[in-house]
Amino acid sequence: MGKEEKSVIEPTREENYPEWYQEVIKASDMAELSPVRGCMVIKPWGYALWENISRILDDMFKATGVKNAYFPLFIPISFLEKEAEHVEGFAKECAVVTHHKLEQDANGHLVPAGKLAEPLIVRPTSETIIGDSFAKWIKSYRDLPMLINQWANVVRWEMRTRIFLRTSEFLWQEGHTVHATREEALDRTRMMLAVYRKMAEEYLAVPVITGEKTDSEKFPGAETTTCIEAMMQDCKALQAGTSHFLGQNFAKASGIKFQSEKETEEYGWTTSWGVSTRLIGGLIMTHGDDNGVVLPPRVASAHAVLLPIIRKEADRQMVMDYTRDLAARLREIRYVGYPLRVEIDDRDIGGARNWEWIKKGIPLRVEIGPKDIASDSVFVGRRDKDPRDKSAIKKDAFVHQITGILDDMQTALFQKALAFRRKHTRPIDDKTLFDAFFTPENPDRPEIHGGFALSHWCGDGACERQIKDRLNVTIRCIPDGRENEDGRCIECGKPSHGRVVFAKAY
Amino acid sequence: MGKEEKSVIEPTREENYPEWYQEVIKASDMAELSPVRGCMVIKPWGYALWENISRILDDMFKATGVKNAYFPLFIPISFLEKEAEHVEGFAKECAVVTHHKLEQDANGHLVPAGKLAEPLIVRPTSETIIGDSFAKWIKSYRDLPMLINQWANVVRWEMRTRIFLRTSEFLWQEGHTVHATREEALDRTRMMLAVYRKMAEEYLAVPVITGEKTDSEKFPGAETTTCIEAMMQDCKALQAGTSHFLGQNFAKASGIKFQSEKETEEYGWTTSWGVSTRLIGGLIMTHGDDNGVVLPPRVASAHAVLLPIIRKEADRQMVMDYTRDLAARLREIRYVGYPLRVEIDDRDIGGARNWEWIKKGIPLRVEIGPKDIASDSVFVGRRDKDPRDKSAIKKDAFVHQITGILDDMQTALFQKALAFRRKHTRPIDDKTLFDAFFTPENPDRPEIHGGFALSHWCGDGACERQIKDRLNVTIRCIPDGRENEDGRCIECGKPSHGRVVFAKAY
Repeated sequence: MGKEEKSVIEPTREENYPEWYQEVIKASDMAELSPVRGCMVIKPWGYALWENISRILDDMFKATGVKNAYFPLFIPISFLEKEAEHVEGFAKECAVVTHHKLEQDANGHLVPAGKLAEPLIVRPTSETIIGDSFAKWIKSYRDLPMLINQWANVVRWEMRTRIFLRTSEFLWQEGHTVHATREEALDRTRMMLAVYRKMAEEYLAVPVITGEKTDSEKFPGAETTTCIEAMMQDCKALQAGTSHFLGQNFAKASGIKFQSEKETEEYGWTTSWGVSTRLIGGLIMTHGDDNGVVLPPRVASAHAVLLPIIRKEADRQMVMDYTRDLAARLREIRYVGYPLRVEIDDRDIGGARNWEWIKKGIPLRVEIGPKDIASDSVFVGRRDKDPRDKSAIKKDAFVHQITGILDDMQTALFQKALAFRRKHTRPIDDKTLFDAFFTPENPDRPEIHGGFALSHWCGDGACERQIKDRLNVTIRCIPDGRENEDGRCIECGKPSHGRVVFAKAY
Repeated sequence: MGKEEKSVIEPTREENYPEWYQEVIKASDMAELSPVRGCMVIKPWGYALWENISRILDDMFKATGVKNAYFPLFIPISFLEKEAEHVEGFAKECAVVTHHKLEQDANGHLVPAGKLAEPLIVRPTSETIIGDSFAKWIKSYRDLPMLINQWANVVRWEMRTRIFLRTSEFLWQEGHTVHATREEALDRTRMMLAVYRKMAEEYLAVPVITGEKTDSEKFPGAETTTCIEAMMQDCKALQAGTSHFLGQNFAKASGIKFQSEKETEEYGWTTSWGVSTRLIGGLIMTHGDDNGVVLPPRVASAHAVLLPIIRKEADRQMVMDYTRDLAARLREIRYVGYPLRVEIDDRDIGGARNWEWIKKGIPLRVEIGPKDIASDSVFVGRRDKDPRDKSAIKKDAFVHQITGILDDMQTALFQKALAFRRKHTRPIDDKTLFDAFFTPENPDRPEIHGGFALSHWCGDGACERQIKDRLNVTIRCIPDGRENEDGRCIECGKPSHGRVVFAKAY
């Protein structure tokens, strides 16, 4: 049986989606779990994706007036304790530093020594440590708004880890802002959510629903948490980014005060917002297929790989010169603000070479052999098409059209993901149907298996809890722009005025 | 007494250099110490400098084939123990994570809970954790060279901290490579040292001496450590970057083996190399003056600030339009590969505005008032000139000449620093003179006070130790390209074949 007939990734998505996810990452060489519990190693092909994502986000943040800074990795326990809900949320899963050196014990083993007077935790998020700086920096309304972002690693001690999606250490950005008024802080919360939506939809080609979390799902210490929620190919939701309106909670906890224009002393209004390497997991689960990862062109680790085909040693020089010349021409082209990223792979490993790049998800594979050169053509395969579906194109035409081809692929990926989400999103008003929708492999209703249920909810946390206990389904968000519509809570039947998004989630 | 007559930074460099350093950083608003012992907060004006430095370095690394990746923050103690010298070097000053959560004790205080079976240390450097990955990734000579870099935070528990120069947490890059042969690894060690030299001299305008460390000063576990050494304005040396040839020490410790072309199993040859936020401290101490920081244009946080002068409200619109138009034109210009970074400061705070930018070290201050606009001119001050020395220049000419002006300033800063180093570097062959050279405020020889002494050394660590104990002077490096010259060790008088660089150091 040829490679064309079986899938490259085993198991397939349909056979076992969680295992497919592990295998597709392994096959793409993007990352792996490390020997340190719950921590990952992000390999070059995965890290390049993060570099591209963070560069684009960074440009977008700066365009809104945000500046980058850097704050300590460690947070004294006393800081964490300042905000009651916050400590509640993070104390259960944080790395605690208790000593500042190692010494040999009687058996010659290294053991912790130099006990700290106050233990430090490795930041799980930085509201409290950044708040301490803000309290010192801000004196007057003239110092506002304060718009700061940090690119950093954070640690949350997770018991069940899954690469990119839930790891003890992950990379992220966390924005922290202070404003003179509630309205301005709310506007900033929404402005950054819009940036995340743009990033997800226009760059990662991942359609998202924006909305507000219910009380039970919001950030510990926030007044409101807004989010972007995406649907993965197993119909589960992934929270891909959050933007929090913190009210005056953290300002009061950290003493962030300012003198207003009217010379009164006021507490600031703060926000925080973050996305992480989790975005990479979301991208893989949205676009990946049974042949491997599929990278959206606008953030792809590389855009094209040139594959010189050299069957006779006599051809080598000519083929390589042609290949290098094409690479140089392509690298002069800018795409989404940066030069095209072009790889040359001249390894002599047969068909494995082509499949390796398919598994890595590179948007374009460009074969260059003596025959192609004779007609001044290249032979191009697109990652979003069947692996056998390749076509000859004149070299000059390819150079002129490449950004158009990439954009075309970008759009196709987004549209496909959007169609998938639409197919698996439905209003449900009947409790039996609701339960059936979320019951795996329901033999009675195979056509309605999982996804986003748009159902009425009365607003009571008790109903939310019961649904979660029974089905492991949560309210992903109260979606933005939902219509006022009278209905009855899917759980208790009491009156409701609008639908929320229910789903199983990562 | 007007501002022109006294210095802005007090004390001056001459009065108290270490205090000047603290004050100049405070005045520039680049960074501050945090409430977490030994950790710093890098503020936007300081972080922008680090962004520029790291972007340029990153481009240079990638041009040599290096790819970025990311490895865990935590290192199990057992990994650290694999290399004996290495553990010796870092066990004395590392943050140790012993628990993974916090719980309330009987008094309601949060205390560490969930004790780890094996304590983890926060990486002080990553040879051992990256070595573990390399051992898995590398199987054959075809996998070599392995060229990896990581941008990361590291922690070394310092007892005496000094902002940017020596902090418990700092930001850096650490490159780690594996090669099939000793020669290739040595070449890579030198190639990266050359990158650091280029960074220091061509971008930071900091002249450096390259060379090799003596055994007592080399990296724990390295076979040889090469370095770049700069001279600060107090004549002390700053080690600004290191590139280590690790031989097979870490390959043996981590089991990095490969099958050679001859099908034998061999250990790899590894290198590691790093520079950190310490570079910022070096830059400040090299170029700063008694009015504040002086930023070299090629890495400056911003290149120019436009200062609209509005004395009558009726002029506001016209002056601001002119200013914004100029900013837009300047931002279209590329300098060292990136768009010019231009600030507009329209605060109405009088002369303080100008002085604030002088203290921050921005290369160009551009005043724009109604009179200047009438003659289509701007009024430009250069940070490397006297603050009162400003000159009118036609706006179009300024736009056309700005990159030339910046380059001119860049060169002037480098030349000034080089002249300073030359002035304070001298061959010394007499032990009495040597001791006098390094004795502060020597009343007998005021003209020879500190700097780099080029003196003979027999190669014996005992002589090195005696000099260090007596004068707190160390061998900064055995300089590259030193001439073979017969002489006598400055300490013991035994034969020597060349000079080394002696200095007090940070």
